[in-house]
Amino acid sequence: MLNPAAATTLKESLAQIVGTSNLLTAASDMAGYCRDWRGRYHGKALAVVRPGNTDEVAAVVRTCAQAQVAIVPQGGNTSLCGGATPDGSGQQIILSLQRLRNIRGLDPQNLTLLAEAGCTLQAVQHAAAEAGLLFPLSLAAEGTCTIGGNLSTNAGGTAVLRYGNARSLCLGLEVVTPQGEIWSSLKGLRKDNTGYDLRNLFIGAEGTLGIITAAVLQLFPQPRAYGTALVGVPDLEAAVTLLHHTQRQCASTLTTFEFFSAHCLQLVRQQFPNCRSPLPETPAIQGYVLLEVSSPESAAHAQQLLEHTLLPALENGWGLDSAVATSEIQRQQFWALRENISEAQAKIGKNIKHDIALPISQLAPFVDRCNAALQADYPEIGLVIFGHLGDGNLHYNVSPSPTMDESMLLAAQATINRLVYDLVDEHQGSISAEHGLGQLKREEIKRYKSSIELTLQQAIKQGLDPLNLMNPGKVL
Amino acid sequence: MLNPAAATTLKESLAQIVGTSNLLTAASDMAGYCRDWRGRYHGKALAVVRPGNTDEVAAVVRTCAQAQVAIVPQGGNTSLCGGATPDGSGQQIILSLQRLRNIRGLDPQNLTLLAEAGCTLQAVQHAAAEAGLLFPLSLAAEGTCTIGGNLSTNAGGTAVLRYGNARSLCLGLEVVTPQGEIWSSLKGLRKDNTGYDLRNLFIGAEGTLGIITAAVLQLFPQPRAYGTALVGVPDLEAAVTLLHHTQRQCASTLTTFEFFSAHCLQLVRQQFPNCRSPLPETPAIQGYVLLEVSSPESAAHAQQLLEHTLLPALENGWGLDSAVATSEIQRQQFWALRENISEAQAKIGKNIKHDIALPISQLAPFVDRCNAALQADYPEIGLVIFGHLGDGNLHYNVSPSPTMDESMLLAAQATINRLVYDLVDEHQGSISAEHGLGQLKREEIKRYKSSIELTLQQAIKQGLDPLNLMNPGKVL
Repeated sequence: MLNPAAATTLKESLAQIVGTSNLLTAASDMAGYCRDWRGRYHGKALAVVRPGNTDEVAAVVRTCAQAQVAIVPQGGNTSLCGGATPDGSGQQIILSLQRLRNIRGLDPQNLTLLAEAGCTLQAVQHAAAEAGLLFPLSLAAEGTCTIGGNLSTNAGGTAVLRYGNARSLCLGLEVVTPQGEIWSSLKGLRKDNTGYDLRNLFIGAEGTLGIITAAVLQLFPQPRAYGTALVGVPDLEAAVTLLHHTQRQCASTLTTFEFFSAHCLQLVRQQFPNCRSPLPETPAIQGYVLLEVSSPESAAHAQQLLEHTLLPALENGWGLDSAVATSEIQRQQFWALRENISEAQAKIGKNIKHDIALPISQLAPFVDRCNAALQADYPEIGLVIFGHLGDGNLHYNVSPSPTMDESMLLAAQATINRLVYDLVDEHQGSISAEHGLGQLKREEIKRYKSSIELTLQQAIKQGLDPLNLMNPGKVL
Repeated sequence: MLNPAAATTLKESLAQIVGTSNLLTAASDMAGYCRDWRGRYHGKALAVVRPGNTDEVAAVVRTCAQAQVAIVPQGGNTSLCGGATPDGSGQQIILSLQRLRNIRGLDPQNLTLLAEAGCTLQAVQHAAAEAGLLFPLSLAAEGTCTIGGNLSTNAGGTAVLRYGNARSLCLGLEVVTPQGEIWSSLKGLRKDNTGYDLRNLFIGAEGTLGIITAAVLQLFPQPRAYGTALVGVPDLEAAVTLLHHTQRQCASTLTTFEFFSAHCLQLVRQQFPNCRSPLPETPAIQGYVLLEVSSPESAAHAQQLLEHTLLPALENGWGLDSAVATSEIQRQQFWALRENISEAQAKIGKNIKHDIALPISQLAPFVDRCNAALQADYPEIGLVIFGHLGDGNLHYNVSPSPTMDESMLLAAQATINRLVYDLVDEHQGSISAEHGLGQLKREEIKRYKSSIELTLQQAIKQGLDPLNLMNPGKVL
């Protein structure tokens, strides 16, 4: 712990690097940086530093390393796992990347864009679109979250099935190491087999191995047309069969394959009366698939792909009913049913979220078993099940029923988590598909990783950040 | 160095693990394992050990670690960079993975296959095909090379544009660590954000961080039809323009986009008189593009995609002439023009290979400058330029002209490499796109990596293999 004199010296040094206006030390100025946006984690910081470029980031890190003061890197501060919130000691520095928001360049021939870490995801999407190109990463927080945070957590979203997650979309990084040196690998190459894969090590490390300051991102031609369908399915197993059938028919033109239970749709309709389903609800329809194809050819081709997919699906009973969007407005209406689930659930009260991944073959068996186990212990529980089925990623959320007390549910949170995660583990799954570990799942993960894996992770951390100054208390 | 008694003790311990018939110690038995297949590297080994399963691999590694004897892992022994050949000390153990050749399982719903490291690439392709599925990794050595070697070198090949390299096709690994422990991560998940990306660290590490013993590989539906075209282009720049145009028209149905110079075609025709080009050769045609689309729909659709691509391309002069294969036999004939280049070149004598990658926007400027620089210094030089244009990966090979002495060329090898690689570096490229570093480029790479990158790589090696027992002398 720094004594007051050393703390003052450190702050003076930091102010010299970033300018006094970019060093925040008053509690009121720091408040927004010290809590996560869900209001779940509240920390304290010695100061918030807002460097304006990579050299300043490096100088800040060197200064902190010399003083042996820990750094919490922060982008848009939208972590769902407390990954960007400092601890309660008041001894950590928050390093905000928000002033690094230049798009340094766009290479239309190489289909790449070079963005600084503090660019919002939306700013990157817009820069690509202005050049007539597509940056396909897309997720709910895109107006606020930053590309540095997306890469540090290997963000997912709704187009992973076709374009991959943040990791797959990144061709190169610039990183400030825990020693305050700058590693630059921004060539934008699609192939480069010259040593260990440092890029993928920093991606997903949640700022515990270094600070991502810029990235080369892969762009794609914009599709000429989308074809969007909503399919009512009898159960999750039928949805999985429909997925395979659709992949066979559409291959990589299939960009989205989202699932939500019939209960999710009811919730959305109740909470958002303007949201209407194009399909009549029947007891046989237990869930829905929102599927979308992207055609490089034409709207007619997109429609034709859907027809060739849906007709045999309905004939075989993998789908019970289907509707195809015939306009962009209708497409948005279909999407709204999926996109409003989280908010609809939030409106009826607190819930317990599980962001899990499973082998696709294990999805239906897991859900059957987990539903039964939870309902046996908590008969009044509400199960809000939806997610990126094509990636094997479910948001398996638990909410109280109208007759169940919310506090009763939250009191059971640890028990419910244990039950769900143990079954996830038994079905060869992961307890964090796309949100990372942060501080939320840092302890929990130890139950599910082998000791050899934990040892390997520690060896890497020790090798790159021996003083444990980069975002300590996260991931490991 | 082991004294003779210790060496005898070690061999006895190893024989106890794998059985005497799987411990080779006679020079004649070891000869084939001690040289690379191009005959470029010749080493010596204390013994060749052929474990039969992962537990035996782990026991061998523990035994060697205890004796502080280094291990050279070897798969199909097809490295182009001496990555699997021991040094000349006779003090290293070759650990052959060839007996680990089970396909442990195939999950058709999860579209994954679990293969042991010693399976040949072809065996994996066949196992997928038998289930009506596709494992798309494909390269010249596929009958001999093993999946463990493919992953350890992050192999590329002709379908990277659509399906990615070996790294992208792997969803999980089983690895024996330098300490002889088994890290197993074979769940087959498409999303898993729970800590550092160990998988991608072991992939491409060329056996210097541990030994890959099994892998979960991603499978795909088989395309219903291919559409294959050969296009004559005026120059490399036009080929790049054609690439973008084709990506816009075909998106991810484009699976192959290969380039070769007109000189390559002449070479193939001369050395393989049965190979004929479907296009009349003209002075204006300076190169060729072999492009292939894979349609999930029908042969008619594949043909239609090609038509919509080629007509505007010819109108705009990005292509000067084109031919579309109308049968599988014709398709194979087109492919033979591309696939026989390496062998045709080998037939006319020794050559200097450069497996390089560049940003796609830098391909034409690089080739223009490098050709000019080489021809200025060596007017009689032959330039054999071909490769995976869609990935920015060229095989930029230099051969003597008929009037130039082969030994003259080889005497200039170091100078030529320096000239080519310095220009690659200046154009933001990589000196190894898909072959790795092995021992061939281990020293050369130090000229082109920053000291901070070399330090990071060493820190990882030190953290995971502090005794430097895993394939020493390779990569680093």
